[in-house]
Amino acid sequence: MNYHVLTLFPDMIRDCMNYSITGKAMEKGLLSLNCVNIRDYTRNKHQKVDDYIYGGGAGLLMQAEPVYLAYRALVSQMGITLPDTDGTKEEVYEAFAKKKKPRVVMMTPVGKLFTQKMAEDFSKEEDLIFLCGHYEGIDERVLEMIVTDPVCIGDYVLTGGELASMVVMDAVSRLVPGVLHNEESAQTESFSEDLLEFPQYSRPEVFMGEAVPPVLLSGHHANVEQWRREESLKRTKKYRPDLLEKASLTRKDELFLAQVEKNSPL
Amino acid sequence: MNYHVLTLFPDMIRDCMNYSITGKAMEKGLLSLNCVNIRDYTRNKHQKVDDYIYGGGAGLLMQAEPVYLAYRALVSQMGITLPDTDGTKEEVYEAFAKKKKPRVVMMTPVGKLFTQKMAEDFSKEEDLIFLCGHYEGIDERVLEMIVTDPVCIGDYVLTGGELASMVVMDAVSRLVPGVLHNEESAQTESFSEDLLEFPQYSRPEVFMGEAVPPVLLSGHHANVEQWRREESLKRTKKYRPDLLEKASLTRKDELFLAQVEKNSPL
Repeated sequence: MNYHVLTLFPDMIRDCMNYSITGKAMEKGLLSLNCVNIRDYTRNKHQKVDDYIYGGGAGLLMQAEPVYLAYRALVSQMGITLPDTDGTKEEVYEAFAKKKKPRVVMMTPVGKLFTQKMAEDFSKEEDLIFLCGHYEGIDERVLEMIVTDPVCIGDYVLTGGELASMVVMDAVSRLVPGVLHNEESAQTESFSEDLLEFPQYSRPEVFMGEAVPPVLLSGHHANVEQWRREESLKRTKKYRPDLLEKASLTRKDELFLAQVEKNSPL
Repeated sequence: MNYHVLTLFPDMIRDCMNYSITGKAMEKGLLSLNCVNIRDYTRNKHQKVDDYIYGGGAGLLMQAEPVYLAYRALVSQMGITLPDTDGTKEEVYEAFAKKKKPRVVMMTPVGKLFTQKMAEDFSKEEDLIFLCGHYEGIDERVLEMIVTDPVCIGDYVLTGGELASMVVMDAVSRLVPGVLHNEESAQTESFSEDLLEFPQYSRPEVFMGEAVPPVLLSGHHANVEQWRREESLKRTKKYRPDLLEKASLTRKDELFLAQVEKNSPL
């Protein structure tokens, strides 16, 4: 998996992705990270990348030109030749008709909500390009030409696309074979059940007077499973009732939830 | 606003928050960041923080003790004296009855979905503590004692809580007075309308043969507003129909959407 990030803050991405699991995966050669500074592709003396917004509005917008030129330089390394800015949109599309357009994930509040399913889809690509906006966003004309996947990580406003792109890269990286140990990756499956995870306990058996629930020490596998399922149901009901509607529940699950309802508050 | 982060990767957080808008706000003294390495609070020779999970399961869990001790050291700086681990949960609660318990935001898939409204709520605090889990999570007993706000940034799996905590800090920081320029912060309001933003354009007027929509150059304020509103409606319908259900739409909006429906595909 080769990540390419078009950003005004390449060092922020490099520094941050270098830690922990993604850092180790890069060391092992399972992932690569190529950060391109959009500012290097300005053609004005002061390396200005932003300007006022047509039609009025607060703040500044990133201009089309430096974003396009940074993208053009990046895809030329993939063997795709795009026209300079004296060309047209049609010429850009013609170039992609000849050679597969790489996927460009744009981090934007105007996009589809990022989900685990989308992470799985992205993890099958060889190259993923991330485009990070700053200020009030990016000129629409360049987005139309290059972006394939407008993605939003949640319903909140961030100062830029950098953190969001790292969130997507982190979620995708976990799914790239070899990045997690086998036993860790097994856990992914449990997310697809659409229930929140049950409480978990590690040593010691008693911590500050609080004992681990006895069932977990019983060695009785079926009872452990039932306790965990019920705890998952209770928590999902408490924190994310929206997930319960989509989850595939058994008759037993439904009886348990009805019982909880009757005895509420939990 | 003082951020405190309990983590196994303090350098990752420090490096990453040092850039761009949050970096500048820290320089100006509007924000402070205190990262506490949970590993420094282990009491075993190998500074081990994790162990197997009771009841079975893949992976390792972060143990209660180092998390509790890191938290205890942190809150002692806020004038709260908690017992050592030979104390009990009740003694911990007694300490908080005397002095206000600080808000502890735990980054976890088992939590409420983070929203802009939650960011606004957090931005009113003076101190926010973030607890970042790694591996398969953290022993439930310490979470029960210390966490006030379990928060999830979206329906996807990350390798740890660090990126998620930075997403929350970033969204909260924007709302701290002085962090954004006045004209930028005005933009926040538009999010509360629950519609996606309209397309935006900056110089030049024609980029690679593509002209800015003429209405934006017309200087006719009401027409600009109407065009933007309609574009917002179209995009929200396309990418986030779920938001339309919650949005407060005028009769005119509804007529426009019905028209779009009739002429679809867009």
